[in-house]
Parts: sequence; structure tokens; C-alpha cells
Amino acid sequence: METASKDLIIEKTANSKIAQVDFDNLPFGKVYSDHMLVCEYKNGAWQTPKIQPFGPLSLDPTAKVFHYGQSIFEGMKAYKDENGKVFLFRPEENYKRFNISSERLAMPAVPEEVFMNGLNELLKLDSDWIPTTPGSSMYIRPFGFASGSGLHASPADEYTFAIVLAPSGSYFAGKVKVKIEERYSRSANGGVGFAKAGGNYAGQFYPTQLAVDEGYQQVIWTDDTSHEYIEEAGAMNVFVRINDTLLTCPTSDRILDGITRKSILDIAKAEGIATEVRKISVKEIIEAAENGSLKEMFGAGTAAVVSPINAFGFRGTDYDLPELNDSYANRLKKRMTDIQYNKSEDPFGWRVEVK
Amino acid sequence: METASKDLIIEKTANSKIAQVDFDNLPFGKVYSDHMLVCEYKNGAWQTPKIQPFGPLSLDPTAKVFHYGQSIFEGMKAYKDENGKVFLFRPEENYKRFNISSERLAMPAVPEEVFMNGLNELLKLDSDWIPTTPGSSMYIRPFGFASGSGLHASPADEYTFAIVLAPSGSYFAGKVKVKIEERYSRSANGGVGFAKAGGNYAGQFYPTQLAVDEGYQQVIWTDDTSHEYIEEAGAMNVFVRINDTLLTCPTSDRILDGITRKSILDIAKAEGIATEVRKISVKEIIEAAENGSLKEMFGAGTAAVVSPINAFGFRGTDYDLPELNDSYANRLKKRMTDIQYNKSEDPFGWRVEVK
Ligand SMILES: Cc1ncc(COP(=O)(O)O)c(C=O)c1O
Ligand SMILES: Cc1ncc(COP(=O)(O)O)c(C=O)c1O
Repeated sequence: METASKDLIIEKTANSKIAQVDFDNLPFGKVYSDHMLVCEYKNGAWQTPKIQPFGPLSLDPTAKVFHYGQSIFEGMKAYKDENGKVFLFRPEENYKRFNISSERLAMPAVPEEVFMNGLNELLKLDSDWIPTTPGSSMYIRPFGFASGSGLHASPADEYTFAIVLAPSGSYFAGKVKVKIEERYSRSANGGVGFAKAGGNYAGQFYPTQLAVDEGYQQVIWTDDTSHEYIEEAGAMNVFVRINDTLLTCPTSDRILDGITRKSILDIAKAEGIATEVRKISVKEIIEAAENGSLKEMFGAGTAAVVSPINAFGFRGTDYDLPELNDSYANRLKKRMTDIQYNKSEDPFGWRVEVK
Repeated sequence: METASKDLIIEKTANSKIAQVDFDNLPFGKVYSDHMLVCEYKNGAWQTPKIQPFGPLSLDPTAKVFHYGQSIFEGMKAYKDENGKVFLFRPEENYKRFNISSERLAMPAVPEEVFMNGLNELLKLDSDWIPTTPGSSMYIRPFGFASGSGLHASPADEYTFAIVLAPSGSYFAGKVKVKIEERYSRSANGGVGFAKAGGNYAGQFYPTQLAVDEGYQQVIWTDDTSHEYIEEAGAMNVFVRINDTLLTCPTSDRILDGITRKSILDIAKAEGIATEVRKISVKEIIEAAENGSLKEMFGAGTAAVVSPINAFGFRGTDYDLPELNDSYANRLKKRMTDIQYNKSEDPFGWRVEVK
């Protein structure tokens, strides 16, 4: 059945897969809902977006996404409250960042209507797929890539924007042990580290695998010039608590301007927690670990929410972090997720209802 | 018609497109031959490779190549001599580098048999497509990407290796005017710059476009830490001639170990040209331009062969290079292409006949 409302075509599936899904045991990002949004950019213009059954895409083997990594994405979540209402968290920020990424990757900006209205309609159509088990949510993946063909190393002339939905459980199983990395780097000065460009992630897999082989779950990236300052943790920004001050490093062209990061900073300030945004050296973390002033480290990102780090490794030595009863990580995570799941007031005006 | 010989399945096209091609006016990398090689990696093993009609690939929208840039490639050429014999140039080097790239991108190594035998059979099948117009050749694009699905930022469990063929004319139309870049960078220390990873190229498009808007064709990348040393030019390594010495910078984890680069170095040595492999500062190039000792600059790579640079821009000032009658660029290019097209002896043993 195909219906066209305003500037969106909707083709519904005849075979919902929802009955096959075990919503109590959802993995992260492996189960997909019945529909997806697809919109193509051709002849210099975005075509009419279409919601259609989730299914394969057909591409020329010479599509530039295969050869030149022209691809970007966003990561968002939809949350369902006890009454079945559905909410997004600061979706405008994801939309803005998507187009910051697209500019750096020489891709055409996606119109707000295509992104926002498309997402809204897609979520309404597949709202039964939004899980309600505690800790689970609907992971939303807007992405764009070069579908135009050609082996000349230059931008493509055709692009595809799409959104898929994955009802998901938590990203990490438990607490995370990280390795502070000094050999490999995530991004260059003047590079694309601040963008959610596909290539930034592929480059992390091998060093992360080496860390996993050594018994860690994740790498803490340091700056590629001196390796003296911590920057990010995989797909998370990083926070450090020394005594009672919460620290995170400033964003730069090497670091993603995370929405969770800035939300956590705002919540911390509202909670009366002292915060500092400044460069954080590995040396100072080690010293703090040794003199007992290092209280917490955690990662923050949409997929992994707030992920407490229970130990870090540096040059072969592991440093354990204390177990706190009243950690900032837990307190800030609770404040943030209460806003996300509509369990509390939203003093910041971050929640946006899907309706 | 489908035939299986040894470990290769061959399915020939019923509709050759060759009659539609104007072989005297070939663009670069836009016309593709009738067939392609495809080989899939599944359940921990490479499956039987298949030569099949060139045509679209079908992929899950959640295939990791779209999201995490797990993709690599090679660039090679096949040359046809006056008697119709077909040659590759140092193909073992491309095969080795492909797997150096695949390791860094956490992808499974492609077996030599799949790569080499597959390429050989594909070239034999589509040998009528190899152009003979001067300056043209068959551009060969082996590539590999993550076809396995999932939104978790970790390596895929399925991959596709493929080879497509593009009968091609020259990459650049004429001499090249370049801009020495100080703001944007191509690669990080400890990053993936030495690999032919897709993401390295997408990151260059936007800064290159800015340079094109200022009247240049290409960017000369400098190191991302100090921007004091030149490193590469788009998809080419860079050579500088000061007085009668030919300079090129050493390879590193930021720089691709180009096969043309090392071939040019070997040919130059055999020609009795003084060569130096060492860091080259922007300062020294400017000084040499100003005192007249800067004789030549050129890029070197499979696609663009040897591309003389006729001017470079730095901080808004353009510096012209002299027109030489007997340039190293022309001499070295002729020696190399004579070997490639079987017009001369091959003292280095670089030519490999396709038969
Ligand atoms: C590299 C990187 N850093 C940090 C983050 C966190 O950003 P956000 O909080 O907006 O999800 C992400 C994405 O999730 C990321 O990919
Ligand atoms: C970044 C980069 N540098 C240099 C080169 C030249 O390498 P080769 O001579 O092996 O083609 C290439 C590829 O062509 C490249 O992509």
C-alpha cells in the first residue's frame, strides 16, 4: 500500500517481523524495525523521501561510498514513557551535526524537513517497535553516503540519505576497562575527527582489537601529536572526576562535539557540581590515581549513555578506580535518563514528543 | 553461461557493451568493462570467487561499509603493447599493500589466488576492452568492504572483495597547479594514512574543493603537527628537484608507500640522477623557488602517472616553476611508461604478462 502525504511517500510492509522479536533480550543495533526512510540526491536536488519496507539497497560497484569513504551518520534514540508517549532528546542537535559532518565530507546538506519530518513519521509508523524494558530504547541511525558512481577521487554526484531503527538493549554489558593509547590515533589536526564520518570508526577497530586482546574493552584516544592529553573513548566523550571536580576536555577539530557530553555538563552545573572544561593530561590522571584524588572516569555518548570506567591501563600498568556509593556517573545518568524517559521535569527543554 | 574452472566461477555477459564505447575519448574511471570479479567472505572464510557481468551489488542498509567506513582499495593498470600482449606493472606490490591496508582496517586478508588469478582471468576475458590510444590504459580497481550488517561500532563479520576494470584516458588534463595546505590535514600520526582506506580520500574532498575554488587543481598535504613538511599530493606522492638532486620524503604511517614513487626512485638512480629521501620543508621549497634552484616538482602515482606541477601557492602567493626542455619528470615518465607498455627492456623485472 502506497500513500503520499505532503512530501513523503509511505509504502507499508505487508509482512511485519515484530512477532519474531524478543523484546526482553535485545542486543545493541542488530534487530531492525519494519520500515526505513530513504531519500536520494540526484541532478543537484533531493528527491521525495520515501518510507518503505526495511530491505537491501542496490548500488553500483563503483559507487563512491565503497571506494572513497564518503559517508556520515548520526546516532539518536527514541524513548517510550509509561503511558506509551514517545520522545526524542535534543534532535535538533543531531540534525545540525549531521550537516556539519556533511559539509566536511563534501556532501550536500540534508533539508530539515526530510530529516525531521521523515524521522517523525517513521517513528510513528514503527512505534510498536520501541522497547520499554528498562535500559532499552529505540536506537535511531540516520546516515548518508555517496551512491554516485566513478573511480576519480572526487566527490560523487549522487547521494543517499536514510534512517533505520534498531530497538536496542545496552551497548556495554558492564563496567568498562580502558587502555590509554599512545601509539595509534583517532584523528588529525585539521582532519575529520569532529565529524561523524564513517572512516573515523574503521580506523579505530584495529587498535581497539589490540586493546581487547590485552584485556581491555575500549581505547582512550590521546592527541596524535604528543599523546599527552586524553581526547575520546571510542564512540564516547570522556569525563574524569578529580576530588569533587568533574573534568572533560574541550572539543576541537579532532573531537566530536557530543550531545551527551554537553547535556551532562549542563546537568552537573545545575546539580551544583564543580565542572572544568580543559585539557586533561595523562600525567595528571596517573598522579591523581596514585594519590587517591581520582574518584571516577566515565564515557558519555548516545549509544552507551554514561559508562563508568572501573580501571585504566597505561604502559602496561593497570590503575583501578574506587567503587563509590554516590558516584557522579550514576547521579548524572539518572537525571539525564529521567528526562529522556519522561520520568521527571525537563528544565532544559530537551525533550521533544513524537506525535 | 556459467563455467567453473579450478576455484573460479565464470558467468559471461550475454550483452557486451563494448560497441558503445568511444575508445579514442576515454574519460578516467567512468567507463567500465563487461565483467567484474566478486568474492565474499562469510562464516570466517572466503567463498569461491566469481567473474560475472558488471552490475549492481545488493547490500543491507546496515552493512558496516555505509556506517563505519571499513573499506580499502588498490589502483593498478594493465597496458597493451603493439602486438596485443597485455602487461601488469609490479602487481605483487599491489597485492601486498592491499593486505597491509586490510590489516589496519581490521579486515580479513584476501588470498593471493583470489586476487591474482581472479585479476588475470578477468583481464583475459575483457582484454578487448584494454585501450591502445597513447596515454590510455586499463585502470584496475580491486576493492574490499564490510558487507556484514550491524550498528555496533566494531568490525563486520562479512566482507566483499571485488575487482572492476575501467578503460581510461589520463587523470589530469594538463599541468597541475597546487596549493600547499596548512589548515587541513590528510592523516594523523598513528592513523591510517599509509593504508588505501576509503576514509582517507573523503576527508580530502572538502579542502581540495576550497583549493579548486582558489584556482588550484590539487592540494599538497603537510604534516598535521607543524605543517612545515610536505607529504603527499591527493592520490600522488611528491617529488621536488632542487638544482640537479631529486628529493622525495620518506614514507611513514601518514604517507602511502607508492609503487610509482619507488619505481621512479629506482629509475632515477639507474639514470645516474642524484636522489635524496628525506623530509622536505616548505621553507626550503620557497627559498629554492626564490633563489632559482627549484627546478621541478611533480606528483607520481598509478592513476596520474607522473604529473608535472607548474606552480604552487603558499599563503596566498603563487610561485611558478620553470619550463624545462629536458625535465626529470618527462625523462623518468618515459622510462617508466616504456617499461609498462613493453616498449623497452625491463631491467628491473617489473613487467608481468597477462596470459
Ligand atoms: C567519536 C564519538 N565521540 C563521542 C560521541 C558521543 O556523542 P553523542 O553524545 O552526541 O552521542 C560519539 C557518538 O555517539 C562518537 O561517535
Ligand atoms: C594517497 C596516495 N598517495 C600516493 C599514491 C600513489 O601510489 P601508487 O604509485 O602505488 O599508485 C596513491 C595511489 O595511487 C595514493 O592514493
